[in-house]
Amino acid sequence: MKEFDTIAAVATSPGEAGISIIRISGENSLKIVNNIFRGKNDRKLMDIKSYSMRYGFIVGKENGELIDEVIVSFMKGPKSYTAEDIVEINCHGGIITTNKILEEVIKCGARLAEPGEFTKRAFLNNRIDLSQAEAVIDIIRAKTEISMKSALSQAEGSISNRVNPLREELLDIIARIEATVDYPEEDLEEMTSDKITPQIKKIILDIESILRNSDEGKIIREGLNIVIVGKPNVGKSSLLNSLIHENKAIVTNIPGTTRDVIEEYINIEGIPIKIIDTAGIRNTEDVVEKIGVEKSKQKINEANLVILMLDSSNELDELDEEIIQYIKNKKYIILLNKSDLNAKIDLNHIKDENLNLDFVIKTSLKSGIGIKDIKDCIKKLFFNGEIKSDNFLVTNTRHKEALIKSKDSCIDAINTLNNTQAIDLASIDLRNAWSSLGEITGDTIEEDIIHKIFSKFCLGK
Amino acid sequence: MKEFDTIAAVATSPGEAGISIIRISGENSLKIVNNIFRGKNDRKLMDIKSYSMRYGFIVGKENGELIDEVIVSFMKGPKSYTAEDIVEINCHGGIITTNKILEEVIKCGARLAEPGEFTKRAFLNNRIDLSQAEAVIDIIRAKTEISMKSALSQAEGSISNRVNPLREELLDIIARIEATVDYPEEDLEEMTSDKITPQIKKIILDIESILRNSDEGKIIREGLNIVIVGKPNVGKSSLLNSLIHENKAIVTNIPGTTRDVIEEYINIEGIPIKIIDTAGIRNTEDVVEKIGVEKSKQKINEANLVILMLDSSNELDELDEEIIQYIKNKKYIILLNKSDLNAKIDLNHIKDENLNLDFVIKTSLKSGIGIKDIKDCIKKLFFNGEIKSDNFLVTNTRHKEALIKSKDSCIDAINTLNNTQAIDLASIDLRNAWSSLGEITGDTIEEDIIHKIFSKFCLGK
Repeated sequence: MKEFDTIAAVATSPGEAGISIIRISGENSLKIVNNIFRGKNDRKLMDIKSYSMRYGFIVGKENGELIDEVIVSFMKGPKSYTAEDIVEINCHGGIITTNKILEEVIKCGARLAEPGEFTKRAFLNNRIDLSQAEAVIDIIRAKTEISMKSALSQAEGSISNRVNPLREELLDIIARIEATVDYPEEDLEEMTSDKITPQIKKIILDIESILRNSDEGKIIREGLNIVIVGKPNVGKSSLLNSLIHENKAIVTNIPGTTRDVIEEYINIEGIPIKIIDTAGIRNTEDVVEKIGVEKSKQKINEANLVILMLDSSNELDELDEEIIQYIKNKKYIILLNKSDLNAKIDLNHIKDENLNLDFVIKTSLKSGIGIKDIKDCIKKLFFNGEIKSDNFLVTNTRHKEALIKSKDSCIDAINTLNNTQAIDLASIDLRNAWSSLGEITGDTIEEDIIHKIFSKFCLGK
Repeated sequence: MKEFDTIAAVATSPGEAGISIIRISGENSLKIVNNIFRGKNDRKLMDIKSYSMRYGFIVGKENGELIDEVIVSFMKGPKSYTAEDIVEINCHGGIITTNKILEEVIKCGARLAEPGEFTKRAFLNNRIDLSQAEAVIDIIRAKTEISMKSALSQAEGSISNRVNPLREELLDIIARIEATVDYPEEDLEEMTSDKITPQIKKIILDIESILRNSDEGKIIREGLNIVIVGKPNVGKSSLLNSLIHENKAIVTNIPGTTRDVIEEYINIEGIPIKIIDTAGIRNTEDVVEKIGVEKSKQKINEANLVILMLDSSNELDELDEEIIQYIKNKKYIILLNKSDLNAKIDLNHIKDENLNLDFVIKTSLKSGIGIKDIKDCIKKLFFNGEIKSDNFLVTNTRHKEALIKSKDSCIDAINTLNNTQAIDLASIDLRNAWSSLGEITGDTIEEDIIHKIFSKFCLGK
């Protein structure tokens, strides 16, 4: 185990609650908390057993004033989350008390942890590999049960278990090539292009099998981004509300109410769907609202799917046509809302002949008509109508890219062998393939990429 | 200890975090969690020692599927928060995992706890009295260190320690009166009006001493409500930002930007000050904004102090005069903002002769001029210029009311004695006084008031 300084952070979500936890990790964690802990009968913390708890008070380091009633727990390294000594202080979950206790812990010598630093230590101390560490934050961020299960299985090592054997096979081939090249006089099995090629081809097939369904995997992890667009007052906020079954977005009949972009998650059979309600696009002189319209256009570009809402009780106008121009390069569904009123709209009149009319749904949000059709449509567009979750899936784009790089290096190796028969040249490609796979588990990875990965974590994890 | 069913709730603040805690309390808590816990080597939870922890997994009750990696801790009653058996499940702080674990706990027989129900059990099981229970939520809600310390001291029993001896004195007088009345032939010290009156007077003095500074106490607990009012674009949001040193309210130069009422806490020497930034009051046709203006008027009525902002670079107009009418019955400070520009304003021209000009401050928020003066002004208006925090303070309005009721009953008793000399009649008043004090500690209190108190708690406490 490497030696690090002692770090501390609030590990629970900020806000008023029944309990907050201040987490401290490192070789001085127990000594630091002992400084500001008053147990019953002034009993010190230093003799606390691993995986046990003590009741007492946290007091100010300098003045000894009571700060809060707490329960302190201790997990001795390496049997802890970070593989270091961890002390956790459970206090009454007030914002002031929680921060005050953290402050005293810092005063006693701990350093404020960076986001993800506890998990980073678990990785640096070799308790978990990088793909497992990344899965921890996926568990926390999971928006549906399917994404949670997939993250948990990765935390348990599902991807490492697939990748590590491939790395060993690659290393074995490399080692035998090098032995052949370096010690030709020795009595070793001689490696030739013919012997190596089928082995590499098998590895390529294995990588391809891991990569299968990685698009679905990405959606399971990150969710689908769906943007709702349309003119003011066409019913966008009502659609959002129908989809999330609650009244988060304010709905009024005043055009331009939705100034900010509102985001909500819904769950379609386990797939997290981020629905974004945008400011109604219109020509506006209002500066605040103009910002909203610009944001809408940006959100359209980032979306996986656009839901265009039209008011079927009014004829199409210039503004509708303009909006259609914004979305025509995206996947989209067209909703003809207010279908309970007299229909005046005619999509065939739209000037753009390229408009895709495969997914047009008549809705009446007032009467709840059409909501199910929208959900079915989404399943058809992204999951061939059915969502399966039992398969092993690569969910992380970084892993997918590393797998593709590795596969490409294997293909390079085969090409090298085909063209030159030079096994020592192919060995360079194979080493690249081995190294790319190692980026997934963190065995071969740059410091700054590690830093980038953990900086996306939440504080206290 | 009374017998209750087993309850469960998430005890940490909702949101993505490093750790979430699901708390279970009641006689079946261990059995329930044991059903869904998989320890190392399938070790069961049932033999876990009090104040110790186990590493393992929570699994689905029905399908045994892994839900999350957890640490389970156990506190055996009566040495626990509720005085019942408590199990806490610390899991990766994702929203989905946390809720899923709670769901499984409920499936296994726990009931979802009501807000404050854990603390209510601590009270019903006689581990703490009602004033201590109320202090727990004050600790959580505390906005400054002074309010936190005051709540913590109350949680430790500071108010009960003052009230309980008075109750005993009252009970002693009542008992001796009853003995005199019921057994006149016995050889007891005879109670007379002359003997009782000075004893009651002493109790009244004691109650008055407890009540001293209770106004300050209330402010320390609940904070001061300060409302900022003024015409659109006079600088209200900028003032809020200057006071809180951060950019939460959007500031633009478009009149009418602040549609919603924005609330922020600042801290003036330990006193929590709630600053409310209101929609600029103006005559408006905009429906959304009109709601904002109505809200502003309502907030003025609820405020302890109003800060009226005037633009000193413009002459007073009708709208300013109208706003002055809204606030003239409140405590207020007048800010002449934009004082770096040519002053055109003249307060002496204001038609209302009753306008109080004691607290007029020239500010230039752009240059940071006048902010300190505002804070000094607030201290002068509410704390005689200085904030003391060391004294014992009654902070809770309910306690204050109970003390006043009790004092009034004591005064009634003295009047009864003065008018009738009938000690048995006075005894009824004294019993009322005793009972009112008992409302503070919860010894004599209606079920529905208890319910009301705990329903204000957060979930999981």
